[in-house]
Amino acid sequence: MSRVRTGTTDLLRDPVAPVRWGNSTDVMKRALVAADKIDTIVSLSKRRGFVYPCSEIYGGQRAAWDYGPLGVELKENVKRQWWRHMVTSREDVVGIDSSVILASEVWEASGHVATFTDPLTECTSCHKRYRADHLEEAYEAKHGRLPEQGLADLNCPNCGNKGTFTEPKQFSGLLSTHLGPTQDSGSIAYLRPETAQGIFTNFGLVQTTSRKKPPFGIAQTGKSFRNEITPGNFIFRTREFEQMEMEFFVKPGEDERWHEYWMEQRWNWYRGLGMQEANLRWFEHPKEKLSHYSKRTVDIEYRFNFQGGEWGELEGIANRTDFDLSAHSRASGQDLSYFDQEAGERWVPYVIEPAAGVGRTMLAFMLDAYVEDEAPNAKGKMEKRVVMRFDPRLAPVKVAVLPLSRNPELSPKARGLADTLRGHWNIEFDDAGAIGRRYRRQDEIGTPFCVTVDFDTLQDNAVTVRERDTMKQERVSLDQVESYLASRLVGC
Amino acid sequence: MSRVRTGTTDLLRDPVAPVRWGNSTDVMKRALVAADKIDTIVSLSKRRGFVYPCSEIYGGQRAAWDYGPLGVELKENVKRQWWRHMVTSREDVVGIDSSVILASEVWEASGHVATFTDPLTECTSCHKRYRADHLEEAYEAKHGRLPEQGLADLNCPNCGNKGTFTEPKQFSGLLSTHLGPTQDSGSIAYLRPETAQGIFTNFGLVQTTSRKKPPFGIAQTGKSFRNEITPGNFIFRTREFEQMEMEFFVKPGEDERWHEYWMEQRWNWYRGLGMQEANLRWFEHPKEKLSHYSKRTVDIEYRFNFQGGEWGELEGIANRTDFDLSAHSRASGQDLSYFDQEAGERWVPYVIEPAAGVGRTMLAFMLDAYVEDEAPNAKGKMEKRVVMRFDPRLAPVKVAVLPLSRNPELSPKARGLADTLRGHWNIEFDDAGAIGRRYRRQDEIGTPFCVTVDFDTLQDNAVTVRERDTMKQERVSLDQVESYLASRLVGC
Repeated sequence: MSRVRTGTTDLLRDPVAPVRWGNSTDVMKRALVAADKIDTIVSLSKRRGFVYPCSEIYGGQRAAWDYGPLGVELKENVKRQWWRHMVTSREDVVGIDSSVILASEVWEASGHVATFTDPLTECTSCHKRYRADHLEEAYEAKHGRLPEQGLADLNCPNCGNKGTFTEPKQFSGLLSTHLGPTQDSGSIAYLRPETAQGIFTNFGLVQTTSRKKPPFGIAQTGKSFRNEITPGNFIFRTREFEQMEMEFFVKPGEDERWHEYWMEQRWNWYRGLGMQEANLRWFEHPKEKLSHYSKRTVDIEYRFNFQGGEWGELEGIANRTDFDLSAHSRASGQDLSYFDQEAGERWVPYVIEPAAGVGRTMLAFMLDAYVEDEAPNAKGKMEKRVVMRFDPRLAPVKVAVLPLSRNPELSPKARGLADTLRGHWNIEFDDAGAIGRRYRRQDEIGTPFCVTVDFDTLQDNAVTVRERDTMKQERVSLDQVESYLASRLVGC
Repeated sequence: MSRVRTGTTDLLRDPVAPVRWGNSTDVMKRALVAADKIDTIVSLSKRRGFVYPCSEIYGGQRAAWDYGPLGVELKENVKRQWWRHMVTSREDVVGIDSSVILASEVWEASGHVATFTDPLTECTSCHKRYRADHLEEAYEAKHGRLPEQGLADLNCPNCGNKGTFTEPKQFSGLLSTHLGPTQDSGSIAYLRPETAQGIFTNFGLVQTTSRKKPPFGIAQTGKSFRNEITPGNFIFRTREFEQMEMEFFVKPGEDERWHEYWMEQRWNWYRGLGMQEANLRWFEHPKEKLSHYSKRTVDIEYRFNFQGGEWGELEGIANRTDFDLSAHSRASGQDLSYFDQEAGERWVPYVIEPAAGVGRTMLAFMLDAYVEDEAPNAKGKMEKRVVMRFDPRLAPVKVAVLPLSRNPELSPKARGLADTLRGHWNIEFDDAGAIGRRYRRQDEIGTPFCVTVDFDTLQDNAVTVRERDTMKQERVSLDQVESYLASRLVGC
């Protein structure tokens, strides 16, 4: 197979028979119409400022998204929790931040220039373009077998005509640009399709300067770019996307044990941040479909409930063997082996790679946190309430400070409290509208605590702290409120 | 002038007569030879893992750099402090994270496609390429006037020949790529040269969804890309670089006051993180050299002491007027004005923009923190010590835990303490070599505190905490060490 997807593979799979699903425009339309929860999240995201369509004033950029005030906080919190779990809380992992544009030789050695391609076909009738492998896999999913005559057997999902597909051409997934004043082959440069290669090329420098010995890891978060023919499913698959990757270097022979270790660690990370077990599952890549570098790859999948597939990859955990270090060693002439002084042996480390996407992780946390329950309105009648049950560490806003009403005494007091709390956390101040409506606004964006300054505050110097999920309220003295919140916002 | 540099301008200036300096290869070579402190920082950066040459195993990528384990922590700390100061500690600023690749229309409307260009010339004798304006400005700096015959008067800084320069051609500073399967003009896309435009295009959505009214700001950090002909001076000017930009939207007429306000705020930010006042100064852009959108631009400059110029721009604070919102309004047909309900007026906000570069800010903090003083060696004799006097909030490692010696009782106790402290901060554990040498290693990377576990610890359950700058040591009980450090690492 010429199709190579190093790093996270990014295909949706069916829950029963793990097959791949394409993202033809048709499928996408249905996804956005039928998948209620996704729909709800897309709409809430725009309305509240989590995610906007990119360049919307110009009619939008297909399958590209910008993160709004709440989205950027949530996304940063996801990355921060990952970094803490994978890097700063561990003695055996360090971080780096390598460039998006590396020397072209890197992508030649890694195999990306030659083989990071997708088979592209076009319907000669309606001129719609597709990935040939997606079309065949959709057929296989429906009929339980591949089409006998290949593409010739298939109807165009757009115009319905049969036998209209062109012979597939290999199409590079690398986005390229030119550095310097001339646009010739000598100036060509690639935007990285994965952050991993920046880790492999720096392996020697990091190992020496941080004085680490295998088993140890190098982690990185950052943007990657892929020229996807069929991006889609909201922020699940986009041409530019952020990754969270860690390459863990181990002695050959110890790789399988470490693979199991990192699978467990990664599962626990999602669970530890409150993701529901029922929405997570493992997917073991079949041997015959493994990437060229991989000895074994296991994905953690999340129940996204896209129209094109119930389950989608959250993260791939791969045993990349010594493929990359060996390839770079051969291509660069540099020795990227490790001399194990205790054993008196020299070997090229094997690599275990947990590789996650930031956007899809954020989307999964949003879907998972979204709950509709009931809360009493001003008259005590129960009404529908939308609440994002984010772990406090992920919540974009930690505390909302609400004066009971706009009032020359309450407002300054509430503002003063908000300013104090801003020294620690991201805080919202809101004095517009009925208090119940303001609670709803905060519930909908997952703010763990609302602090209300009311007329009693002027007498008793205390405030009401309301917890998001239970809606329980507690009276807390003003001089205690900081520590009250701090003890409930540990690790935020 | 056809040359437009929106966002931060990035030229070096002389201290007495503020003129611009080019970065010819010749100048660069001298910069790396003669400017001692920069040299020292470049070398320390590689040796200790702050900054590595990008793709070094392949011979390096010109003027591109990767951030190592210490560099990525320092850089993130710079960004975090900026975000706290500019966004989360304020009620009137929110953040976003827009795409690198926006719709092409954005860059047409902003003027970048047409005018984001540099005049490129080539020496016909040695085929070296230069920026014509840099050559002329270097001449002006030396002779106090521009060359009468333009380029014809100038010697090539590389081969020394005179009158060999070609007529300058306008060369685009935009890096471009192609999205989708075809490489034609319809698929062209630009990598953003500044993050600011992603803020302007989202102005309406952010304003509505975050319910802010001018005066309010939208902040963003992220990578930008510029096809610089002459990148250089270590991480000061690179083709890909991170920005920290904030656009503050105000009522026309209030713009000048807000400009002054943000100048003061930004100066105080650097000072508040310990940057020495003697190394900072203002540079007011002459009226006739202002960018096309700017009513006034004032830079904060740092005394980088590059060979090509003593002072260099840290940050530009510009009054962008209503130029960008008006341009996008015209080009998109969308109304980007604001209706001021109280006054019953409709106006297009003016914009004050403090725009800083992450790499150069980090470099300035490194240069500023670098001190050579003296410390007693094991025999009590004074010896040279290198210490990075980072503000603790910036220091890449907050605490080093050091067992006095490798010992079956000391090491596990020290490891246990290190693991506890890792719950809060980035910690190093080091048990290799003499204790004095280990202190030196931590001083050199700016670690504020070293905690030593010694044989007394086994008796008194206390440890020695050593402060970096004063080298004072204090005995602290083990159960107090966490709170002892917490009170000294506030805001970390």
